Amino acid sequence: MRLIYSGKTKDVYEDGPYLIFYFKDSLLGEDGREDTGGNEVIGERPGKGSAVLKQTEFFFSLLERNGIRTHFVERIDERRARFLKAERIPLETIYRFKAYGSFLRRYSGWVESLQELGIVEFTLKDDSLGDPLITEEAILRLGIASEGELEEMKEVTKRVAEILAEFFSAKGLELIDFKLEFGRLNGELLVIDELSGDTMRVMKGGRLLSQEELLEVVE
Amino acid sequence: MRLIYSGKTKDVYEDGPYLIFYFKDSLLGEDGREDTGGNEVIGERPGKGSAVLKQTEFFFSLLERNGIRTHFVERIDERRARFLKAERIPLETIYRFKAYGSFLRRYSGWVESLQELGIVEFTLKDDSLGDPLITEEAILRLGIASEGELEEMKEVTKRVAEILAEFFSAKGLELIDFKLEFGRLNGELLVIDELSGDTMRVMKGGRLLSQEELLEVVE
Repeated sequence: MRLIYSGKTKDVYEDGPYLIFYFKDSLLGEDGREDTGGNEVIGERPGKGSAVLKQTEFFFSLLERNGIRTHFVERIDERRARFLKAERIPLETIYRFKAYGSFLRRYSGWVESLQELGIVEFTLKDDSLGDPLITEEAILRLGIASEGELEEMKEVTKRVAEILAEFFSAKGLELIDFKLEFGRLNGELLVIDELSGDTMRVMKGGRLLSQEELLEVVE
Repeated sequence: MRLIYSGKTKDVYEDGPYLIFYFKDSLLGEDGREDTGGNEVIGERPGKGSAVLKQTEFFFSLLERNGIRTHFVERIDERRARFLKAERIPLETIYRFKAYGSFLRRYSGWVESLQELGIVEFTLKDDSLGDPLITEEAILRLGIASEGELEEMKEVTKRVAEILAEFFSAKGLELIDFKLEFGRLNGELLVIDELSGDTMRVMKGGRLLSQEELLEVVE
């Protein structure tokens, strides 16, 4: 197997028509503080990679049961899983139920923390640029995705928002925001990468859940 | 008259139902280098304020003759002019014919310098935040402008793009980008602030025109 990508939270290997993800124990945060919606590595915790894989398997299965196609195939062991090899679209959709994190910093003074939003944003996936916000018009002109793909990405993101919000709400929890990535495979759009405590923020009574607490929710 | 705003390139006074703008001699640039599309003060040049007022008077008159309402009323002297006092919407529209300046930096590696775009962007006017890009959905949710206003701002920006491009093209020049601000007055949307070498980039044979060169174009 050939290592094709080594990221902050996982290594990705190519295995014929599949990708094998190895989930690392890196903790994500912002300004040195643990934050499940953060984008920088602030340390390590044994078991973190295994927790993210458990969460991803759980949430991708939940999406599949609700008619959303993902690239998840099967878990291999505690830290590794097999995925369909889709062509990654270098965008991220962010669904924001409420204002938090980068949205608060970007528009500081114009928005209250946890103000109701209900919006979808696109960011360009490029760590060296800080994953900048990008408009749909710019995405089209730069040839990053087609109009049909953008519409589908927005629709799927809103549908996933409903599915996840319903799941958490039934457990007395509140989903604040989450991000999704998409890939192309045989003319179809799939949800790819992962869906875990590293890609969503969940609150209980106004307090963010930690990775461990989120893991208890899906176990 | 009461000073109500002191900005990088002008002071604004209140005079009954009017605003009086006093245009300063500050030069705008980026990274210490003069750039008519830049956003930081890099020095002063005698005559700069008077040039910006001449340009603003010229371009606002050009827009008015083409059916676009602006807040310009009349010039008072070399450095001062009278404007209608509209309620300022804290947004800026940027029309980008070609990629340059902040767009190139924001998406570095994903776009070529001077790549064809033809797009409208909205930024939130807040110097302390660096005038961040903002999506239409976010503008609506934060209550900054209405859906009707956003549509009209986009339409007017595109129409202004046509008018200005035609003007420059007839002189063998190429408009690269420009920005507009809008205000509300008696239920109508007006183009406000200024339209000058400080708010547009114009090229001749691939080279940016200086303030002085742009002044010659309108005189």
